[in-house]
Amino acid sequence: MKKFAVILAGCGHKDGTEINEAVCLLLAISQHQCEYQCFAPDRLQTEVIDHVTGNKVANAKRNIMTEAARIARGNILPIEQFKAEDYDALFFPGGFGAAKNLCDYAFKGVAMEVQPDVARAILEMHEAKKPIGAMCIAPVMLARLIPDVCVTLGAEGTPDADNVRAWGANHVQTENGDVCADNEKLIFTTPAYMLNATLKDVYDGAYNMVEAVIETLDE
Amino acid sequence: MKKFAVILAGCGHKDGTEINEAVCLLLAISQHQCEYQCFAPDRLQTEVIDHVTGNKVANAKRNIMTEAARIARGNILPIEQFKAEDYDALFFPGGFGAAKNLCDYAFKGVAMEVQPDVARAILEMHEAKKPIGAMCIAPVMLARLIPDVCVTLGAEGTPDADNVRAWGANHVQTENGDVCADNEKLIFTTPAYMLNATLKDVYDGAYNMVEAVIETLDE
Repeated sequence: MKKFAVILAGCGHKDGTEINEAVCLLLAISQHQCEYQCFAPDRLQTEVIDHVTGNKVANAKRNIMTEAARIARGNILPIEQFKAEDYDALFFPGGFGAAKNLCDYAFKGVAMEVQPDVARAILEMHEAKKPIGAMCIAPVMLARLIPDVCVTLGAEGTPDADNVRAWGANHVQTENGDVCADNEKLIFTTPAYMLNATLKDVYDGAYNMVEAVIETLDE
Repeated sequence: MKKFAVILAGCGHKDGTEINEAVCLLLAISQHQCEYQCFAPDRLQTEVIDHVTGNKVANAKRNIMTEAARIARGNILPIEQFKAEDYDALFFPGGFGAAKNLCDYAFKGVAMEVQPDVARAILEMHEAKKPIGAMCIAPVMLARLIPDVCVTLGAEGTPDADNVRAWGANHVQTENGDVCADNEKLIFTTPAYMLNATLKDVYDGAYNMVEAVIETLDE
């Protein structure tokens, strides 16, 4: 049975992992009769946002892994325990948590850096020539770290697409449910809520991405 | 286009709504090309649980609706604004939040009462002869309020099944993915994580429950 690692970044799209994307990803893995293990950084979120008002909650502190455990039903490990040799593929759902807690893209844009614990996991997997899948805004981390990789962030002509090119990577426009497959670098990305998507659209993209990764493993 | 109301109870299965169940329910609604509107009580959760350790967090306070908004991507209304006339059906995902925040079943068992704001929504919908669907532990509220209704909480011979009968309702054993359909009272229930279920199983149950409700509406 294939075993996939999924890196979460909190719980809730404004300060953590986009919940709908994460569950659609885990569901697609479950529907393909594969196993998953969730991981997250065991450190504080950069901020806490009230998801009704959209305002930052002053002085609030939440731990990324403790919140992500709400999605993972408690079955979660600190990202330090991730080893590429234990998994067939690595996945990242999106949400602002990916851009605030796993890297600082939400704050620094093109000048962003990936957090060292997350970069270590991505590069270890990539050097082991194993596939990585990412949804929504999460592909920025792959574009920042992997030279000449091809990813999607949905529409063309956006600042996000321009940033991808500024890092020396390539950006491909996609529609709801599409997967951008870089079969050479084994990077698979889907736009999810980067586009105006329904939950069905998000699921279709997650499902197609997981299927593309499994096909690569079966080749 | 059919429009469904979904009542949430927080965000995370140990003190709020079971996230996987909620997203599978919303996804099934989206896949049937129906709309949904989420609601939640705008009051404090009874408790906050650390989802890594399982321990209660002393002095922590979280608002049920503010947390539920993480699942609903901010598109959520206070339960007082729910009107049966606006919706074709009403749904409840499970999780301890249903048994701690929407009623007090987790604390009082057979002596439980449904919170007045939640009971109002259920009874208004039931008196309008519109269908109600519930997952996991949430059917206890329907069994407590609707005489002689038939529901499932998964396995037979459990204290939960005995409590359902003590309230004058009926309990039916179900397996993963099954729906208990009370076609006379228009109550549709599925066991979800009351059984040892995979995420695929939870989705199958949610999908089948939504389909059964839509078939009732189309008759």
